[in-house]
Amino acid sequence: MSSDYAQWYNDLVIKGGLADYSAVRGCMVIKPYGFALWENMRDTLDAMFKRTGHVNAYFPLFIPKSFLSREAAHVEGFAKECAVVTHYRLKNDPAGGGVIVDPEAKLEEELIVRPTSETIIWNTYKSWIQSYRDLPLLINQWANVVRWEMRTRLFLRTSEFLWQEGHTAHATAEEAIAETKQMLEVYADFVENYMAVPVIKGVKTESERFAGAVETYCIEALMQDGKALQAGTSHFLGQNFARAFDVTFSDKNNKLDHVWATSWGVSTRLVGALVMAHSDDEGLIIPPRIAPVQVVIVPIYKGDDQKAIIDAKAHELVSQLKGAGIRVKYDDNDNNRPGWKFAEYEKKGVPLRITLGSRDLENNVVEVARRDTREKLSVSLDGLDLYVRQLLEIIQLAMYEKAAKFRTDHTTVVDNWKDFVETLNNKTGFILAHWDGTAETEAKIKEETKATIRCIPLDSKIEEGVCVFSGKPSKQRVLFAQAY
Amino acid sequence: MSSDYAQWYNDLVIKGGLADYSAVRGCMVIKPYGFALWENMRDTLDAMFKRTGHVNAYFPLFIPKSFLSREAAHVEGFAKECAVVTHYRLKNDPAGGGVIVDPEAKLEEELIVRPTSETIIWNTYKSWIQSYRDLPLLINQWANVVRWEMRTRLFLRTSEFLWQEGHTAHATAEEAIAETKQMLEVYADFVENYMAVPVIKGVKTESERFAGAVETYCIEALMQDGKALQAGTSHFLGQNFARAFDVTFSDKNNKLDHVWATSWGVSTRLVGALVMAHSDDEGLIIPPRIAPVQVVIVPIYKGDDQKAIIDAKAHELVSQLKGAGIRVKYDDNDNNRPGWKFAEYEKKGVPLRITLGSRDLENNVVEVARRDTREKLSVSLDGLDLYVRQLLEIIQLAMYEKAAKFRTDHTTVVDNWKDFVETLNNKTGFILAHWDGTAETEAKIKEETKATIRCIPLDSKIEEGVCVFSGKPSKQRVLFAQAY
Repeated sequence: MSSDYAQWYNDLVIKGGLADYSAVRGCMVIKPYGFALWENMRDTLDAMFKRTGHVNAYFPLFIPKSFLSREAAHVEGFAKECAVVTHYRLKNDPAGGGVIVDPEAKLEEELIVRPTSETIIWNTYKSWIQSYRDLPLLINQWANVVRWEMRTRLFLRTSEFLWQEGHTAHATAEEAIAETKQMLEVYADFVENYMAVPVIKGVKTESERFAGAVETYCIEALMQDGKALQAGTSHFLGQNFARAFDVTFSDKNNKLDHVWATSWGVSTRLVGALVMAHSDDEGLIIPPRIAPVQVVIVPIYKGDDQKAIIDAKAHELVSQLKGAGIRVKYDDNDNNRPGWKFAEYEKKGVPLRITLGSRDLENNVVEVARRDTREKLSVSLDGLDLYVRQLLEIIQLAMYEKAAKFRTDHTTVVDNWKDFVETLNNKTGFILAHWDGTAETEAKIKEETKATIRCIPLDSKIEEGVCVFSGKPSKQRVLFAQAY
Repeated sequence: MSSDYAQWYNDLVIKGGLADYSAVRGCMVIKPYGFALWENMRDTLDAMFKRTGHVNAYFPLFIPKSFLSREAAHVEGFAKECAVVTHYRLKNDPAGGGVIVDPEAKLEEELIVRPTSETIIWNTYKSWIQSYRDLPLLINQWANVVRWEMRTRLFLRTSEFLWQEGHTAHATAEEAIAETKQMLEVYADFVENYMAVPVIKGVKTESERFAGAVETYCIEALMQDGKALQAGTSHFLGQNFARAFDVTFSDKNNKLDHVWATSWGVSTRLVGALVMAHSDDEGLIIPPRIAPVQVVIVPIYKGDDQKAIIDAKAHELVSQLKGAGIRVKYDDNDNNRPGWKFAEYEKKGVPLRITLGSRDLENNVVEVARRDTREKLSVSLDGLDLYVRQLLEIIQLAMYEKAAKFRTDHTTVVDNWKDFVETLNNKTGFILAHWDGTAETEAKIKEETKATIRCIPLDSKIEEGVCVFSGKPSKQRVLFAQAY
């Protein structure tokens, strides 16, 4: 990790069984273990969305090219690096063995593989919304999206990725803003309490805003290399998309107005954040609440007699732990030695390993090893299910505390340009500094240091100050960092 | 339904809130209620797949064009009506306000939006499988796929649809065949016991086989217009894809062999089957086990005093029913009258409606209305949760029985061509008839009657007979029908 962070990350993702490169440039394969992790994250978020009144739906993969141009800012942001469908048929190559694109099957209007779905969804909402009685419309979609990338980084930057996108419609600006903020809180709750990654909530500056948004809220997390990662965004879209797609509603007084909108999303990028926030040189470290396997049981035995005794105890233990709601795996595969298994489950970041050995069993104890601290403990078999359940919760909290301490240690209040540059180069991490509020200064700072304004933190207090770069007056500190 | 079946189907899907047409030709929007239904179907199937040892993963949306040509039969079947990505960038139109495809961003090799994923998956398996220890590989994927369609029918025929595709790899043919049959049983179990639609299990004739399969197993269901619908397929792929993508493994004796494969899938088409198997002129009828809402409670009151009493009772009832694991909705929306709500939930096919009226409450009873039989019953509030739970099970079974009776009434054993044609034209439904086993006869029958061989039923007994069309000898009856 300390010598080559990018390589370390890549090795962890591949050797931990999360994902793999594919034959298609820019697209990854999410492997079963990685997908099980994503399923746990998805299901947890989905339940949170439903508890806050949202329902799921599904909209087309393809967007007519002209739709992207309807919203002026949106087209600038998204009608760039897209996958463009131009034809709808292949035919046998008359010159050879393969297939070629049939030139006669050219689409009248090209279709874009969705980079995000505001346009197709607001075009649909036009026929769903007539009256205030149809509002609010609180819809979410789990889908794949494509934004063409030349350089791939597994989970962090891939042409195709999986995500959810919420698209809500409201009768008033206040209600839409409240929704935007509510979903930011949902994301922060999930990332902090399930992924064990502390976040800073804030709003983006104008230049970092979502293309088509009035205001973009975000949560920003800090990775172990001192770089920031945007973990989720929630946008107040004003009436921009309603105007672009002519979506109006009649209010209680029968007055027509355009509908107010929000959109919000998180993606498989969160898996990358999880890896970079917690893991170490031995492999992944996955927080218990979302770990596909929370406990792995590894037997150690000599000969069939010992194996029979340990097998029986292991199966008893498995059903005991499953009964306590714990996701447990018994690895009795004879092809691999215990040492190999220890290393394997460390790579995979399984929070707890229980070793079942003959001598221990005679003493009614097992060895329990924590992945996060690598501590080993000798624990009585009596009441082991309760012990394990509590220890998993302790690990969950300890992982959060460790990440929070790292963030505290790597957040620096800076008041002059020299310190700003030095902090970035040596200490890395988040910098809280005054900024004069201009896009010009923001761009110059980025040019000189690669640091961007991650957000204006919601809890940033109003105080007099001068911009760390321009020396012009400033009213509050903003959060700077180099970022993914 | 009797005067215009196609129109009836379309009305039900749209007015029942399942789906809608979209601005993109061939693509539909799955509305929240339809998606909730699909979620219940998906989650039930997913649990069944996991219980049989399968795990989920995710493979790329795009397939390099050349991959489709690798397996000779596969390319004939799938490299036809596809969405073809030829470019990866748009740019501002120098001549106007919109965006155009950037001619400089042409892909070297076109990408096909997956119509099915055998090729990209077996290309991936090549690097995952070396030894018998890596087998079996039991992977499933939930995904969207695209097969270009000019004429759209919601759920039944859309260019983009949602599905799951299982792709497994095995060391022996026997094991792969056992897997193929196991998944056929899983599908039959699901469609019969959750969707309440009886199916006939069988194998496809050579001409109806999946492109690249050695054997295709299927389940066939009968719709209320007497047409068949293929509800799921499970393919034994032999070593065809392993050979095409050079996937070999070394067995226990260190001998190299190609890997044996299966694939199997069901799609959102099942939602169409559900609608057509059960519904009536009043709307959808959804079986309780997969219904998004199993019970709707509608209040009837005059004035605020009555409303307060009924509201209190309704909330009590809701928590009682939820406690019994029942999906219940209380519709206290003041904007709509009870009669409108009755019609609305009939359209949506909610299995049970409970009406709460003031006079009934005084007598400690409620009115319970069954959607399937449209019976109304006066039921005591005491122990209502248990009553409702049992009634939902009764409805589930009654719906299956009704569909099974319809199928029995519309399955005809036919022994000559005159009866074959007459049965098809007048009685409709499944026909069990002898066939001489040739593709030629099969094609001629299809040409003359539009009837196809749906399958050779697994339980078809061996008996001497003569082909209903050619008069040539035959050893068993096969299942004919006109089909979706």
